Amino acid sequence: MQRTMINELNKKINKNVEIKGWVHKIRKLKAITFIILRDRTGLVQCVVENSKIKDIDIKLESVVSINGRVGENNNKLNSFELNIEDINVISSCDEQLPIEINKENLDVNLDIMLNNRMLSLRHEKVNSIFKIQNIIVEGFRKFLVQEGFTEISTPKLVEGGAEGGTEVFKVQYFEKQAYLAQSPQFYKQMMVGAGFERVFEIGHVYRAEEHNTTRHLNEYVSMDLEMGFIEDEKDIMSLEEELLKFILNKVSSEGDKHLKLLDVKIPALENSIPRIKFSEAIEILKTRYNKTDLDGDMDPEGEKLICKYAKEAFGSDFIFLTHYPRKKRPMYTMPCGENETHSFDLLFRGVEITTGGQRIHQYNALRENIKYKGLNPSNYESYIDNFKYGMPPHGGLAIGLERITALLLDIDNVRKTTLIPRDRTRLVP
Amino acid sequence: MQRTMINELNKKINKNVEIKGWVHKIRKLKAITFIILRDRTGLVQCVVENSKIKDIDIKLESVVSINGRVGENNNKLNSFELNIEDINVISSCDEQLPIEINKENLDVNLDIMLNNRMLSLRHEKVNSIFKIQNIIVEGFRKFLVQEGFTEISTPKLVEGGAEGGTEVFKVQYFEKQAYLAQSPQFYKQMMVGAGFERVFEIGHVYRAEEHNTTRHLNEYVSMDLEMGFIEDEKDIMSLEEELLKFILNKVSSEGDKHLKLLDVKIPALENSIPRIKFSEAIEILKTRYNKTDLDGDMDPEGEKLICKYAKEAFGSDFIFLTHYPRKKRPMYTMPCGENETHSFDLLFRGVEITTGGQRIHQYNALRENIKYKGLNPSNYESYIDNFKYGMPPHGGLAIGLERITALLLDIDNVRKTTLIPRDRTRLVP
Repeated sequence: MQRTMINELNKKINKNVEIKGWVHKIRKLKAITFIILRDRTGLVQCVVENSKIKDIDIKLESVVSINGRVGENNNKLNSFELNIEDINVISSCDEQLPIEINKENLDVNLDIMLNNRMLSLRHEKVNSIFKIQNIIVEGFRKFLVQEGFTEISTPKLVEGGAEGGTEVFKVQYFEKQAYLAQSPQFYKQMMVGAGFERVFEIGHVYRAEEHNTTRHLNEYVSMDLEMGFIEDEKDIMSLEEELLKFILNKVSSEGDKHLKLLDVKIPALENSIPRIKFSEAIEILKTRYNKTDLDGDMDPEGEKLICKYAKEAFGSDFIFLTHYPRKKRPMYTMPCGENETHSFDLLFRGVEITTGGQRIHQYNALRENIKYKGLNPSNYESYIDNFKYGMPPHGGLAIGLERITALLLDIDNVRKTTLIPRDRTRLVP
Repeated sequence: MQRTMINELNKKINKNVEIKGWVHKIRKLKAITFIILRDRTGLVQCVVENSKIKDIDIKLESVVSINGRVGENNNKLNSFELNIEDINVISSCDEQLPIEINKENLDVNLDIMLNNRMLSLRHEKVNSIFKIQNIIVEGFRKFLVQEGFTEISTPKLVEGGAEGGTEVFKVQYFEKQAYLAQSPQFYKQMMVGAGFERVFEIGHVYRAEEHNTTRHLNEYVSMDLEMGFIEDEKDIMSLEEELLKFILNKVSSEGDKHLKLLDVKIPALENSIPRIKFSEAIEILKTRYNKTDLDGDMDPEGEKLICKYAKEAFGSDFIFLTHYPRKKRPMYTMPCGENETHSFDLLFRGVEITTGGQRIHQYNALRENIKYKGLNPSNYESYIDNFKYGMPPHGGLAIGLERITALLLDIDNVRKTTLIPRDRTRLVP
């Protein structure tokens, strides 16, 4: 008999079906036993006379197939249940389960959750995080394809530590020393110049940073885009507003079931996102919040306060900070006047979720800015050579997938929004 | 004025427009100059009186904006042309171009092509390869999502060299030694067991193989899938038939323009793909082609001959070889009898494009098979522990993206079907 998925049982009332899945719960009464079965589409209550299963050892989380008849019945899960005629154990779970995954909440600490990742992911609420994450990714992709962007895949093994500053992982590449790419920055710019004009990449990036915070991973998924023929960074910011509206709408409509399970509301984004200059933000922190320890820089507490300000002053969960100081931005960032740049960060609920801006597209200006940053142009030749051959004005941005997922779903650690996270100490599973 | 894309000019006959792009060709006559402009959507002929541009230095591959009126005109490219009123150089290409990219074919050797990748990708035919490649990827994704698969992203930094055999790249991961993943094999199996049941991943994999052939890369994109609740490997082969039909149809219909440019015909795949046992294939090679040097193994020449046989005997460009010897397959492969396995390869036009099969899903059998392969189960604990907790029968496959692109488009080297390839000697650009 063909397998029926649990979410299609409502079409099979009074019919015989076969379902397969994991034994989620067992409740044995005197004469009958209730079994809740779980497959990738949902849960269903099944009921069987004890005499029918007296020779079968049914354990929690075993994989079984069940034949039976779908009958109307009002229970917590559905308006029907399955009357078991036959049950077969396909793959028995003989070991004691290290975590309880059939409770409403997975009540274990982070290490236990991640050490038992296959099991913790079976928990409905944990699983739902990744269903939402997929909608975010698909929203990013779909919106950009509609806007004429081409998806690209660029190397993660690179010759140079691209951006300077952040620490990089070293790889022995035959006789040579290679590094794991910190971002697809150079390649996405190259692909704009290669005639694709508008490109995006959804792929891993690597940061060998020593710190082990709740919002950093050493390997994460960066949703990157780069767009040619712009006026300046404001085109990128406007694009991001539309992109985020699209993603949030998609998550709200398609992720409904999972959002309810997670008890989360997605913020509305109807108007434009407020934009203030970085220097203004520093000023606001000083005057409004008496935060004077910044010395012209931003810190996590500052980001939180600026988001508080955005909520109070504009009623917005989002705020763009613009015109970051030239000293704070990588060498490819388009300067704006003597000390500022055509760049921005987007903050959301207290945390930076995007860095973006216009890039330098003129060969000589790029060489000059590399020197301004105290770097040596000859270390970047295979990159800057591209700028000799007609590079349009362009800019772009990057959004960290795990971070935006965590912030949207009000989850306190990006490790929980990564299937298999890599951090300062975690290389397993 | 808003930029108009070249492929929308046909809706603007007798209107004034602004277009932007790269100067593809210049032909100066006595009184007028023809300029062919290229943007991401196509080419258009523009014409201007020489007096209007006498102070402007227009060079091949410079980025320009052109204002003018669209007039009807029959030329090689379109049924219209643009009468230039004003032309502005946005980003001048002052350097001598190292390769000629406005000829019908890009007539340079592979190294020159790859060393000048931004420029070679501007060539229409080169660019088209990646438009087709994107349709392949999108076909893979769309078909699987329709079939209830969930897209996953798993770590490329791993603790163990997953599969044994193939060489791995080493990474210094803080105090630890890590490796770049050769495949997402263990993780995709884990995600089946995590309740997703059906998963796929499109991501980089790494092989530190020393050989430098036309069909190998050291970093490539693997399109991987894994499916739970199967009977055996035949379910995976049937899925792949439908998947390939879907992809080929999508390429044929959506890639039409690019296929014409590349002068390529996509093979039809209407019926089932013929299936023969590996041992039969060896026998056919011996008796039909007098190939006796195989010693029970397969080699590239053998693959070519078996594809020849498939064409002659079944009229098929594809052939499945099944029941590979247990000795030749990784430890996770489900055995079939004493010496064979529930596994397969798919050959296409002389080359293997897929390896797949059923995996062992029982804890004890997996431990035994690891020992049978001469490996130590204790090196695989974080993997095999998963099999204690109810793993459904499952199997999967992997398709190399660059390789299938090359074979479909009749391209002689996978480096040409990679935006930025990594091979034995190439780490730049």
